[in-house]
Amino acid sequence: MLEFGCDYLEGAHEKILKRLLETNMEKEPGYGFDKYSVSAKKKILEACGCPDGEVYLLVGGTQTNATVIDSMLTNYQGVVAAVTGHVSVHESGAIEASGHKVLTLPQHLGKIDAGELKELLVNFWGDETHDHMVFPGMVYISHPTEYGTLYTKAELEAIHTVCEEYGIPLYVDGARLGYGLAAKDTDVTLKDLARLTEAFYIGGTKVGALCGEAVVFPKKAPKHFFTTVKQHGALLAKGRLAGIQFDTLFTDDLYMEISRHAIRMAGILKEGVTKKGYPMLIDSPTNQQFFIFENSKLEELRKQVAFSTWEKVDETHTAIRFATSWATKEEDIEALLQLL
Amino acid sequence: MLEFGCDYLEGAHEKILKRLLETNMEKEPGYGFDKYSVSAKKKILEACGCPDGEVYLLVGGTQTNATVIDSMLTNYQGVVAAVTGHVSVHESGAIEASGHKVLTLPQHLGKIDAGELKELLVNFWGDETHDHMVFPGMVYISHPTEYGTLYTKAELEAIHTVCEEYGIPLYVDGARLGYGLAAKDTDVTLKDLARLTEAFYIGGTKVGALCGEAVVFPKKAPKHFFTTVKQHGALLAKGRLAGIQFDTLFTDDLYMEISRHAIRMAGILKEGVTKKGYPMLIDSPTNQQFFIFENSKLEELRKQVAFSTWEKVDETHTAIRFATSWATKEEDIEALLQLL
Amino acid sequence: MLEFGCDYLEGAHEKILKRLLETNMEKEPGYGFDKYSVSAKKKILEACGCPDGEVYLLVGGTQTNATVIDSMLTNYQGVVAAVTGHVSVHESGAIEASGHKVLTLPQHLGKIDAGELKELLVNFWGDETHDHMVFPGMVYISHPTEYGTLYTKAELEAIHTVCEEYGIPLYVDGARLGYGLAAKDTDVTLKDLARLTEAFYIGGTKVGALCGEAVVFPKKAPKHFFTTVKQHGALLAKGRLAGIQFDTLFTDDLYMEISRHAIRMAGILKEGVTKKGYPMLIDSPTNQQFFIFENSKLEELRKQVAFSTWEKVDETHTAIRFATSWATKEEDIEALLQLL
Amino acid sequence: MLEFGCDYLEGAHEKILKRLLETNMEKEPGYGFDKYSVSAKKKILEACGCPDGEVYLLVGGTQTNATVIDSMLTNYQGVVAAVTGHVSVHESGAIEASGHKVLTLPQHLGKIDAGELKELLVNFWGDETHDHMVFPGMVYISHPTEYGTLYTKAELEAIHTVCEEYGIPLYVDGARLGYGLAAKDTDVTLKDLARLTEAFYIGGTKVGALCGEAVVFPKKAPKHFFTTVKQHGALLAKGRLAGIQFDTLFTDDLYMEISRHAIRMAGILKEGVTKKGYPMLIDSPTNQQFFIFENSKLEELRKQVAFSTWEKVDETHTAIRFATSWATKEEDIEALLQLL
Repeated sequence: MLEFGCDYLEGAHEKILKRLLETNMEKEPGYGFDKYSVSAKKKILEACGCPDGEVYLLVGGTQTNATVIDSMLTNYQGVVAAVTGHVSVHESGAIEASGHKVLTLPQHLGKIDAGELKELLVNFWGDETHDHMVFPGMVYISHPTEYGTLYTKAELEAIHTVCEEYGIPLYVDGARLGYGLAAKDTDVTLKDLARLTEAFYIGGTKVGALCGEAVVFPKKAPKHFFTTVKQHGALLAKGRLAGIQFDTLFTDDLYMEISRHAIRMAGILKEGVTKKGYPMLIDSPTNQQFFIFENSKLEELRKQVAFSTWEKVDETHTAIRFATSWATKEEDIEALLQLL
Repeated sequence: MLEFGCDYLEGAHEKILKRLLETNMEKEPGYGFDKYSVSAKKKILEACGCPDGEVYLLVGGTQTNATVIDSMLTNYQGVVAAVTGHVSVHESGAIEASGHKVLTLPQHLGKIDAGELKELLVNFWGDETHDHMVFPGMVYISHPTEYGTLYTKAELEAIHTVCEEYGIPLYVDGARLGYGLAAKDTDVTLKDLARLTEAFYIGGTKVGALCGEAVVFPKKAPKHFFTTVKQHGALLAKGRLAGIQFDTLFTDDLYMEISRHAIRMAGILKEGVTKKGYPMLIDSPTNQQFFIFENSKLEELRKQVAFSTWEKVDETHTAIRFATSWATKEEDIEALLQLL
Repeated sequence: MLEFGCDYLEGAHEKILKRLLETNMEKEPGYGFDKYSVSAKKKILEACGCPDGEVYLLVGGTQTNATVIDSMLTNYQGVVAAVTGHVSVHESGAIEASGHKVLTLPQHLGKIDAGELKELLVNFWGDETHDHMVFPGMVYISHPTEYGTLYTKAELEAIHTVCEEYGIPLYVDGARLGYGLAAKDTDVTLKDLARLTEAFYIGGTKVGALCGEAVVFPKKAPKHFFTTVKQHGALLAKGRLAGIQFDTLFTDDLYMEISRHAIRMAGILKEGVTKKGYPMLIDSPTNQQFFIFENSKLEELRKQVAFSTWEKVDETHTAIRFATSWATKEEDIEALLQLL
Repeated sequence: MLEFGCDYLEGAHEKILKRLLETNMEKEPGYGFDKYSVSAKKKILEACGCPDGEVYLLVGGTQTNATVIDSMLTNYQGVVAAVTGHVSVHESGAIEASGHKVLTLPQHLGKIDAGELKELLVNFWGDETHDHMVFPGMVYISHPTEYGTLYTKAELEAIHTVCEEYGIPLYVDGARLGYGLAAKDTDVTLKDLARLTEAFYIGGTKVGALCGEAVVFPKKAPKHFFTTVKQHGALLAKGRLAGIQFDTLFTDDLYMEISRHAIRMAGILKEGVTKKGYPMLIDSPTNQQFFIFENSKLEELRKQVAFSTWEKVDETHTAIRFATSWATKEEDIEALLQLL
């Protein structure tokens, strides 16, 4: 079976396991005060160009979104997100479970538009009944999006400008951030994210770690964020588990190196599948690649290849997703192309 | 520095790391559907003597408590717990954050009393204003307790009987369950817990794992518990991380073997410290040992030994806690005893 | 100033005030156990043709929606509503504040479509990732809708059929229910609502009362609904305030009589304004009437008439709403028509 | 039947009903913007000596507590209250339902002690694990308490001083505030409350109104408090209902006048019952009077008198509560005394 179903099929990068092994019997304090977490945070802040910021290492994506969003909103506020945003659809209501509405904007290949964001805010504040509504209290975007697409620096700046104008924070879900930063034509860097947002997270789970997401507050974390993390059940007793992983990922550029590998693999896959005549659903620059297949072909493929069914295109065609990752082997892609 | 501050100072048991390494590049589905999670769950249910039950593998203790409790209560119910229970004190309000009150009972060395539980329930239902109050909807106990003490089988049966009489589930927080089961004079087994509770969790984080808690529903999980887990941010994308760990811990009795080691170490420590003339605060049968020291002695000790300050006893004496674990070395205990 | 801005401008129907006055010094128990509440509930159940149902008298609409919805959903469920539904837009996030997502459907003049509801449910259950999503746990509709429109009996039956097929309750927000039941061409009766829903409320605040909404559970109230009402701060200590009002409204058909008055007034207004050449935005059969005016005309009108600005139609035209009520005087409508 | 069971047995003071009647057909805007609410707020602020403060008129006590507390706490904070406080016991978990823990202090005849409050705060901040706990974010007291007792000005000042030292607001539940202010030996005035608290409410429901509680923020309301009110379902569409009632109560000192009447009645009752030889459970200075009766006597009394059973004193004695109110008639007290 050739596996392209998602980007969290394997364990962790071998260097991470090696470090876990080497440090295993060292005695370190819990809750993120171990020396590896301290070191990881320092390296991350350096990479982000915001040495005075703060970093917290959490476990998973939904958890991170719920914790950060809860910490940045007050009771009468909601978070603005694309209708296809992970927080809008695939978190089993984690945001609402902490009392906050997700206010939705249209999506454009998974992205929100600064103009439409501004319109939402103008309309809200201009609506004479807005005191009876949920206040838009922050903006959530994912980068890469759920469709594998990327914001340009200009787009991020436009969104940032609107947020600043309305005094609401911008938060970026970077579950697959490495694959966005490593994309060939992107002009967005970690430093741009640090400059343009109040918070973002650097995904570990999908980019080489067993688990772990690093939340970066480029300026300052919300007050007593540690306690909010604890309240959300997101505090690792053995913080070293996340610390060692991120310390390794941010040593010798490993995070970017393995991200670039996934992008290279995605490029080969994209070129190959396209050459075989299968149209792209979306021209994605990241590790998620979307193609349209005839249903009959898919039935056949399914016997030898694992992939995600994305959406029905018409009666006889379906869009599917192939994902590459830090762990994808070129030989598997070649095998896939041969099957096609 | 001799470290006896807590039982989560090291990484994981070496067999766990070995398995993580061996299986690392295998491709497995996410969210707990990997073959290691499936195998771990089977082994756990066998060990518990409830092959038709269900097991879910979560990440940490507070998270597990909040998720299980939320899944077992409806909106107008609260959970009954000892005033010293972890959910009452040390979870930053995670239970309340999901809308539920913690209704407290007095503690007796960390334990609740079946008679007092019954009294609470009798009083509640007998109170003509009870429709204006929070309904006691389940009972939470920890075993071992936060004071290192254990319920006897008879005590658990008495609590179970009260719960059954009032139709409310009993849930056991087993963050340190191994150390309870391995205690010398306990008559409580995994099978007893399965027989006497509606849910309990087998702690991994403090008993040899990097992270992970295995929730056992001896009969049946609450409806759509998977979605509640997701909503609480407790669902590991790479479920294998927990699966491999618990599969290893429940192979060849490893979980009990390492728990017995910690108990043996605690026994040596207890005997030694007692011989030196330091009185016990509590005669704990598990891996947490509590002694009373003169403050002046403590100041000195602190330079070479890490421990937890437990409570002030009087103006010149303080109770402290030494914790042993699966990873404690006998030579460290000897060094401690020499220092004393 | 001619006031057509909303349907809650005056106090209560004179018969209600009379009864409040007459009964004022009688000593009655609190919390809805007074004889007037008991009598009102009985009359309401009779009017609804469901003598074995249950009625609770709450204070306001948002409160009623939040309380009923919270009582009918479990933690992982959300409520399906039109994107324009009151719960979706104008309740300051009250539904989310109790932990539940509002899952939206498109609106058609404020109404949802049974086919689209079915599609949402089919898609949800057919989505292989639905365990990561919010479960549609009930359906909310308003009747009349926020646009003054009404479901036909056939439409309600179609929605009811879908709900039944998927085992989820249907709940109707009847803030303006009287004006819906009294509409000329409706075929929907109180008995139909009792037959086709699991819960609905009969609005008092906008139909002759000072405050109060009567929630009807045609079969059975959710378990311990009284306590949920208390938890939501919706329990009147002096339940008589709501009891006397609803007892009066459901004596001698007063509720319908005053509703018919409002409909008659709306008919005169509609005919008159239309004759003056102002197009309707929506052909509403109830007490809310929507017309399109030139902005210049509106500026002038605003000096002498109060109305609600509904929406911008184009650069030079705006839609506005005139509301009639049980208290509207025909002479005021004539004065309005003269002004036009 | 002689009714002394509670202080909300009748409707409203006749002057209130008269005003409701007189103003009934006036057209006034909703949501508290009516001229009566505006006037009532002004009069209340004047009576409190804080003309720059803000007043909101809500409907009931539990609702008011939940709304105010939610507006003053952030996600990781709880409210400190007496173990017997209304929010601790009799609100069906309304505080927890909005995500906040009630942190309890011992009660002394219903009151908390400034010293014990300080101790709780010292202990919290001194506890090295406090980041894993719920932060005490505000203090709740009731005045009169649930036991009919009153704080002295010195006691309030002491609590205020502790709150100020720790930077947390003090909030007073004044469900029966009138009866506290009118007590003979109290030295606490409305102006003291305005000076010493960040928020308090003046109870209407139990002091002459049909419903309604006036929340006073002597300095400034929490940001967008209106929206929090709406979210809690506490916003009256016909705000005039509360406005007219409070405007009447705060005209010509009516609120205090009727409160003094209740206190005078309670004094006669207390003196009379005491003379008959029944011991007081608590020497209450307000409208709630607590006495100890033999059970056999109570059985007999129950046939002709309604009262509240308070608590079991011993096998043969029970404490009961008689409540007087603005509406109590002296002849009823005389009849009661005759029965005894």
